Amino acid sequence: MVYIGIDLGGTNIAVGVVSEAGSILSETSAKTLAERPYQEVIRDMAACVMKAVTKAGLTEADIASIGIGIPGVAQGDSGVVFNCTNLGWINVPLRAEMQKYINKPVFLDNDANVAALAESYFGVSAGYKSSVMITLGTGVGGGIVINGRPWAGAHGRGGEIGHMTLVPDGAPCTCGNNGCVERYCSATALIRTAKQECYSFPDTAILKKAGGDINRVNAKLVIDAAKEGDASALRVFNSFVKYLAMTINDITAFFDPDIIVLGGGVSYAGDFLLNNVAALLPRYQMFKALPIPKLALAKLGNEAGIVGAAMLGK
Amino acid sequence: MVYIGIDLGGTNIAVGVVSEAGSILSETSAKTLAERPYQEVIRDMAACVMKAVTKAGLTEADIASIGIGIPGVAQGDSGVVFNCTNLGWINVPLRAEMQKYINKPVFLDNDANVAALAESYFGVSAGYKSSVMITLGTGVGGGIVINGRPWAGAHGRGGEIGHMTLVPDGAPCTCGNNGCVERYCSATALIRTAKQECYSFPDTAILKKAGGDINRVNAKLVIDAAKEGDASALRVFNSFVKYLAMTINDITAFFDPDIIVLGGGVSYAGDFLLNNVAALLPRYQMFKALPIPKLALAKLGNEAGIVGAAMLGK
Repeated sequence: MVYIGIDLGGTNIAVGVVSEAGSILSETSAKTLAERPYQEVIRDMAACVMKAVTKAGLTEADIASIGIGIPGVAQGDSGVVFNCTNLGWINVPLRAEMQKYINKPVFLDNDANVAALAESYFGVSAGYKSSVMITLGTGVGGGIVINGRPWAGAHGRGGEIGHMTLVPDGAPCTCGNNGCVERYCSATALIRTAKQECYSFPDTAILKKAGGDINRVNAKLVIDAAKEGDASALRVFNSFVKYLAMTINDITAFFDPDIIVLGGGVSYAGDFLLNNVAALLPRYQMFKALPIPKLALAKLGNEAGIVGAAMLGK
Repeated sequence: MVYIGIDLGGTNIAVGVVSEAGSILSETSAKTLAERPYQEVIRDMAACVMKAVTKAGLTEADIASIGIGIPGVAQGDSGVVFNCTNLGWINVPLRAEMQKYINKPVFLDNDANVAALAESYFGVSAGYKSSVMITLGTGVGGGIVINGRPWAGAHGRGGEIGHMTLVPDGAPCTCGNNGCVERYCSATALIRTAKQECYSFPDTAILKKAGGDINRVNAKLVIDAAKEGDASALRVFNSFVKYLAMTINDITAFFDPDIIVLGGGVSYAGDFLLNNVAALLPRYQMFKALPIPKLALAKLGNEAGIVGAAMLGK
């Protein structure tokens, strides 16, 4: 038997046929074209699944289950997507719609939960009883895994680390609240504060790396400039790291997992990020003498979306 | 068989013999006298257990297990108390020491986790799959229950809601960090800000209720003045409620339990607290349209410490 994993994004649908051992046996993809009615998107997802299965030399009978990672809030038990801002989906019966085409068990969960699950099966958090993954991308996501199962919360809202409150009455967030982690610890936040530095200190290496065009400033370029010791870039990066350390303390104080995994685009900064966060953690942890969760970089790349989704059915 | 529950506090040791159904069959207590060597404290705990068992007309053979709620951080698996500030205990082998006197399974956990467990067995969160209790007392504690079992985290640090960071670089905390929830959401915080109001607005009803003596200001008196509409007391209370709403959002965003229970001394404010928090929650929640955890007041009183500790062995 094989497990189907679907990584549903705002731009692309990526489908993989995944073995028991976590190998991707075949892959297909299609454009999401999210402006269409959801029925059409899900019909294309089902078509992608069957194409991938055929490509792997298998048939529908070989499918154990279909797992879907979605960029939003899902209530796994009900099979319904509550809210997907990127897709414009509200209360979409994804499981029921998918089962019109392929009558197999269908599981859904938030894409960050799914990535955390993949890491806990085959990545850096494998073998740990509990793990929390923080995905530092355009926004900030999170996933919780307890005893090998993702924890999405009672209403599918769990793991939304990006929307924990970090600064009371702070920067307004797209979620309708203020001061969310995402406003201070995302690639978007890095870029925003870097642009402010570019205005104040036009000599910064950030602006040089962007060819003098402030609109070309991105997270990688800010981190590269910080690695080289540029003062503006270091201010931006250090502020990011400080807020991340506070967020890690929140997770430790509340949940205290065995391991906390840093993933998402900003985590490609690698050891430069990991070492700087680890160095600052003791300052922002409660009860300094007590052991804290292990901190590590995510190991799986893009395939985590497909593999983790597939493992929802395991 | 019966379950022994021990509520170990900085001042008193309270021991109860608890039935399968959660009734306390008999109780004993002793002074903790925490300045003594831990061996003597634990010897007295064991003596209290045997006295309570005899009082219930039972013998050692009737004891299924001994559960102990401690005012600090314990690593349940190892049976060792890492840190108890109130008792001055660091790395105390509580289980091994207790088993010198009574050779039964011994379980330990933080007192807030234990209270949360009691509520989930016999109180307001009974029947829910997951719950989080926030204890609003001198400090702020917390307990997490998942599928009827307490979650103390991988290193015994879980549920320390009072030490999540609420205000970056905020008020210094006894834990060595800054801006902890406990600095803004405890009875201590209520009293501190109330005293500031008394200095600035000596006409406040808070000071009148304290007989003009600022040192007699306590949490109950501040809440009573707020209920009567005193402007100073309302400023103090509303600030407390606002920070509590942010903390509840943090718990919802990260963990999303079925129910959040408010306990501890400040929760005796009852519906006045509950209704004000519930009214403010929509303002401080992410994604306003999605369902949120149920919010409720703790139902069990002081006996939660004994009953919850006993249930550690169930």
